[in-house]
Amino acid sequence: MVVVMAPDATEDDLAAVVDLVRVAGGSAFVSRGVSRTIVGLVGDLDDFAALNLGSRPGVQRVMRISVPFKLVSREHHAQRSVVRVGGVPVGPDVLSVIAGPCAVETPEQTLVAARMAKAAGAALLRGGAFKPRTSPYSYQGLGEAGLRILADVRAETGLPVVTEVIDPGHVDLVASYADMLQVGARNMQNFALLQAVGESGRPVLLKRGFSATIEEWLSAAEYIAQRGNLDIVLCERGIRTFEPATRNTLDISAVPVAQSLSHLPVIVDPSHSGGRRDLVLPLTRAAIAVGADGLIIDIHPNPKVALCDGDQALNEADVAELADAIAVLSALMGRTLAVAEPAVVS
Amino acid sequence: MVVVMAPDATEDDLAAVVDLVRVAGGSAFVSRGVSRTIVGLVGDLDDFAALNLGSRPGVQRVMRISVPFKLVSREHHAQRSVVRVGGVPVGPDVLSVIAGPCAVETPEQTLVAARMAKAAGAALLRGGAFKPRTSPYSYQGLGEAGLRILADVRAETGLPVVTEVIDPGHVDLVASYADMLQVGARNMQNFALLQAVGESGRPVLLKRGFSATIEEWLSAAEYIAQRGNLDIVLCERGIRTFEPATRNTLDISAVPVAQSLSHLPVIVDPSHSGGRRDLVLPLTRAAIAVGADGLIIDIHPNPKVALCDGDQALNEADVAELADAIAVLSALMGRTLAVAEPAVVS
Amino acid sequence: MVVVMAPDATEDDLAAVVDLVRVAGGSAFVSRGVSRTIVGLVGDLDDFAALNLGSRPGVQRVMRISVPFKLVSREHHAQRSVVRVGGVPVGPDVLSVIAGPCAVETPEQTLVAARMAKAAGAALLRGGAFKPRTSPYSYQGLGEAGLRILADVRAETGLPVVTEVIDPGHVDLVASYADMLQVGARNMQNFALLQAVGESGRPVLLKRGFSATIEEWLSAAEYIAQRGNLDIVLCERGIRTFEPATRNTLDISAVPVAQSLSHLPVIVDPSHSGGRRDLVLPLTRAAIAVGADGLIIDIHPNPKVALCDGDQALNEADVAELADAIAVLSALMGRTLAVAEPAVVS
Amino acid sequence: MVVVMAPDATEDDLAAVVDLVRVAGGSAFVSRGVSRTIVGLVGDLDDFAALNLGSRPGVQRVMRISVPFKLVSREHHAQRSVVRVGGVPVGPDVLSVIAGPCAVETPEQTLVAARMAKAAGAALLRGGAFKPRTSPYSYQGLGEAGLRILADVRAETGLPVVTEVIDPGHVDLVASYADMLQVGARNMQNFALLQAVGESGRPVLLKRGFSATIEEWLSAAEYIAQRGNLDIVLCERGIRTFEPATRNTLDISAVPVAQSLSHLPVIVDPSHSGGRRDLVLPLTRAAIAVGADGLIIDIHPNPKVALCDGDQALNEADVAELADAIAVLSALMGRTLAVAEPAVVS
Repeated sequence: MVVVMAPDATEDDLAAVVDLVRVAGGSAFVSRGVSRTIVGLVGDLDDFAALNLGSRPGVQRVMRISVPFKLVSREHHAQRSVVRVGGVPVGPDVLSVIAGPCAVETPEQTLVAARMAKAAGAALLRGGAFKPRTSPYSYQGLGEAGLRILADVRAETGLPVVTEVIDPGHVDLVASYADMLQVGARNMQNFALLQAVGESGRPVLLKRGFSATIEEWLSAAEYIAQRGNLDIVLCERGIRTFEPATRNTLDISAVPVAQSLSHLPVIVDPSHSGGRRDLVLPLTRAAIAVGADGLIIDIHPNPKVALCDGDQALNEADVAELADAIAVLSALMGRTLAVAEPAVVS
Repeated sequence: MVVVMAPDATEDDLAAVVDLVRVAGGSAFVSRGVSRTIVGLVGDLDDFAALNLGSRPGVQRVMRISVPFKLVSREHHAQRSVVRVGGVPVGPDVLSVIAGPCAVETPEQTLVAARMAKAAGAALLRGGAFKPRTSPYSYQGLGEAGLRILADVRAETGLPVVTEVIDPGHVDLVASYADMLQVGARNMQNFALLQAVGESGRPVLLKRGFSATIEEWLSAAEYIAQRGNLDIVLCERGIRTFEPATRNTLDISAVPVAQSLSHLPVIVDPSHSGGRRDLVLPLTRAAIAVGADGLIIDIHPNPKVALCDGDQALNEADVAELADAIAVLSALMGRTLAVAEPAVVS
Repeated sequence: MVVVMAPDATEDDLAAVVDLVRVAGGSAFVSRGVSRTIVGLVGDLDDFAALNLGSRPGVQRVMRISVPFKLVSREHHAQRSVVRVGGVPVGPDVLSVIAGPCAVETPEQTLVAARMAKAAGAALLRGGAFKPRTSPYSYQGLGEAGLRILADVRAETGLPVVTEVIDPGHVDLVASYADMLQVGARNMQNFALLQAVGESGRPVLLKRGFSATIEEWLSAAEYIAQRGNLDIVLCERGIRTFEPATRNTLDISAVPVAQSLSHLPVIVDPSHSGGRRDLVLPLTRAAIAVGADGLIIDIHPNPKVALCDGDQALNEADVAELADAIAVLSALMGRTLAVAEPAVVS
Repeated sequence: MVVVMAPDATEDDLAAVVDLVRVAGGSAFVSRGVSRTIVGLVGDLDDFAALNLGSRPGVQRVMRISVPFKLVSREHHAQRSVVRVGGVPVGPDVLSVIAGPCAVETPEQTLVAARMAKAAGAALLRGGAFKPRTSPYSYQGLGEAGLRILADVRAETGLPVVTEVIDPGHVDLVASYADMLQVGARNMQNFALLQAVGESGRPVLLKRGFSATIEEWLSAAEYIAQRGNLDIVLCERGIRTFEPATRNTLDISAVPVAQSLSHLPVIVDPSHSGGRRDLVLPLTRAAIAVGADGLIIDIHPNPKVALCDGDQALNEADVAELADAIAVLSALMGRTLAVAEPAVVS
């Protein structure tokens, strides 16, 4: 059970609720979000019913939690949401393509990749400045220098920037450059990071952990939402299975399942799920056809020398074919292709 | 290494090859197929090279096996194959839909389901007479009575029949009624059954085991091919993962991966992979868009009373929507919808 | 719901039961076992209750099935069972070791391996004459010639023989040589084979499928039991997971879990689960300590030239260490080491 | 390839190395640890060979990295390590038991649990003050108040304290109370946290991610080691598989596999892997028998009212049986039971 305090509730109102719960033999856990405070109750629901909490001073609403996620659930918010990223919509009526290099390496590489992304139909630029790598000996990214490159390329191309943050201590820095913060698969249950991006004021791209159930994924989104940030886009990027032919197994069913459980937009990463360049195009088509709200795709001017995940990056020759597939299939699914606005407000 | 004997090779030719291999310190295993005999060699390849087996009497060809499947591999047969089932083609230029009830229950239920299947765009009728069930207390199917119903419905509707066989001892019986024999996921490594259907003279629908790698799936197809039967259609139907939201996880990437490794047609089962009626349509769209050569879909006139897998069967209301999606997407992928011929030769 | 007919029930008794069920709107599926006939009911339990089936002529018992396995469940048979194999007990008070070569290759290799097995503390000899292999180009076993070698080695060493059967059509042949029939992991849901070994009159070693849940494994055992054969030993041999360091992941918890759900003995295969010689000894110790009723271990006089799974076979030098560990740990767990009787009755 | 700089290397020495690598066409990534600086090289190894980096000023050693972990690998440090936690050794000759409540709830509950832990043979006290929970509505722990309770109970019982840290920003706080910092399964690839605990000066208990391969687990340990902290204990706690009977599947083979690849101690968590009280004892026996260096076990005075994971906590009655099993099996494996020193230096 969750007690949502009103925006104007006082500390005394809050303390009164907590005391009542404890007297009734329960435990009360207070989560202070940016815009509102929530009290989670653990204990016997029947005892709490007698407290009549809904009519106490400062209490806005009392909700029974039947699922471990509530704010992001469709059950309580039937209409599917639109998230705006630097002016670009992501949601049910559009198809929003994010593309760019896995890692930002140089200004030139990033600019060329951004132009390729635009040619492929992308409205948003991706690029990693901080890279979470399994081995400490792998390339870890350029850090702030990479963020500056992304900002420069945004100025040049008009594409808003999506980039990953891996440390709660970097959230302010990354948010000062980026239009959207990405939480990667390995960090999906890094709760400190989820809370930090929840307070950042920036839309968040939440990748599914490679072994997370859909329920755990939505619960992770709930951590962000609880801090008052509902501008969340979910991204399916493949799960870990026994099959060695692909890096991960794209769980294509997760798109309609997550859309039926949550009002948040759901996009697909055909590059990291397959880990193979030859699969990007067929998986892109499958993602659009299954009903995804967007895509995030690796592109590199010269995949052979890429410092990160070159095996899966599309090159110049692939981009035209990709653009065609995206245009035709999005139309078929009744979606218009999202485009970056001429004058970007980032 | 494999020695393929010529069709007119004598027993002496065969014995000579086997002896040579043994003298060279290797082992020779003879597989007698319907149309040809193959000798598998185990041992030191360098020793075998000296034997000059390719020029021995009765030897047609000597092949080094780099993959555990050869006859079904695309490496040695670049052009994708077309398999004909009761006159209906399954292959690269068409989209072939198989539909019908999970289990044959009554003549009426089967006939109504077959008409629904036709309305959905199906060219082939599926229906189980012998059902492999996890529990011995679950419905096991009507047996031969079910096969007779299927044959009657074929006569009425013109749809060739695809039905499962679960026991090598039933292959002749089932083949006398059916146009195509289905080997189910649980039997994908039932080698006695694979060999029996390989000798049946009927095309085979080989479902992927729910925990089989793509390589193991193709190796299972090779068992059928080795008996001289290359009329094999592969069917991806979901793999077992940790995700509980769906019955299995449809491995949509397996379609292009299997098509790149094998020349055999690859179809998708959107009903068993998801196990949910609401997912059949989106997964059907995804399957066509990813490049599948066909679909196999559960349909039931009244899913609520189905004796088997009612949760995933489409009903009358779903069929029109399915037909639309199939028509539009197959055209987009450059495929014509396969249709049953007016006068069926079964 | 299941109706168990009395051994002396007539066909008319049976037909009467079936008719009653159908009139009540349900379906009745008849399974004729060797020793008794069972009628499985599908439909509304409340309707069936009114039929008062338990008091009809020829009906022995009516059981509500809450789990998909009943005859093998501990819920209805609290005492753990002892299965005797050629006079050797497998069950709660002993530790029974089965050892021998993965595949029977020659009389000499098999005899030497059997003597090594005995030295390691084994009471039963394993050895494959029919091998289920993923690729049709792998070594498939010697067939009946291998069975004859096993019988000869049994005569020489006194060790009863455990060997695999992969084809329902071979069950009589294999049963004529072997003391126990093994159903391998790939065949765990080969229902025709399960029913055939259920009618064989021989004890059965049922390996867990590498992707089978414990419930599915027990349901497979139920197929055997339903044919009147309760002499079943379950064998955990590793499940398929994402971890590549071992061939399979030994699910050590499955031993106490299966023992809590079923009265059947449960043994462990430390050779196939790890697939690595260096893991056989630690996994053997873990298996005994967790409470396993026995072990099945690969042994080969010269693993480097083994035709099958040489990487995991123990050699002469390993055997002494294994014998020590088995002796010490079985004593600690309050079990005596099972031994083959001097005069074997096979 | 990795260049390890000498402790007295200057910034100029470092810059010279980086320049050389770049001129040779490679990339150089500098990791500054507490005690030493490491330069990771990406590019063509043959080009780097010509640079003769090993003899440059300030360079201590040049290592080719064949595995993604080096400092924790056994290949380069053959002798297994002993880690000391508040004076208690964890390593090859002892068996070290960590026990206590999943979550610290009250001073009384923690003290009683600590006494139970001691009775069970534990030398170290576990207890969570910061809890990583899948749902934001679950109990999140007492925070610093919980740490104070743990410190008080340590003073009372002499047991050094092991507790989890989930936020890099809390590391200093937690390290000021705890003797060992635990990194939980969900945070195994939270690289910011790994680096923070690497700099904390406290020994670290690194739980395996529930979907991490052994190689990824050791790579995560390498992140800690790279910051100059080699006092790391690895903890296997079950992996995610398809089997629903247990919360996770204890990968018992991971113990000998990790010990063969790394010199670090490896312990087992029989409570979280099974998630069932009835499995704790058999899994504890299996863990000791397979060769684990220790155990971490959930204990609660009254599991029914536990705020966290009560289903798996041992109660008073279980503890005596656990103590017996631990004493007997550790002796059998040639290990003495580690004990907390009378006067604890924390």
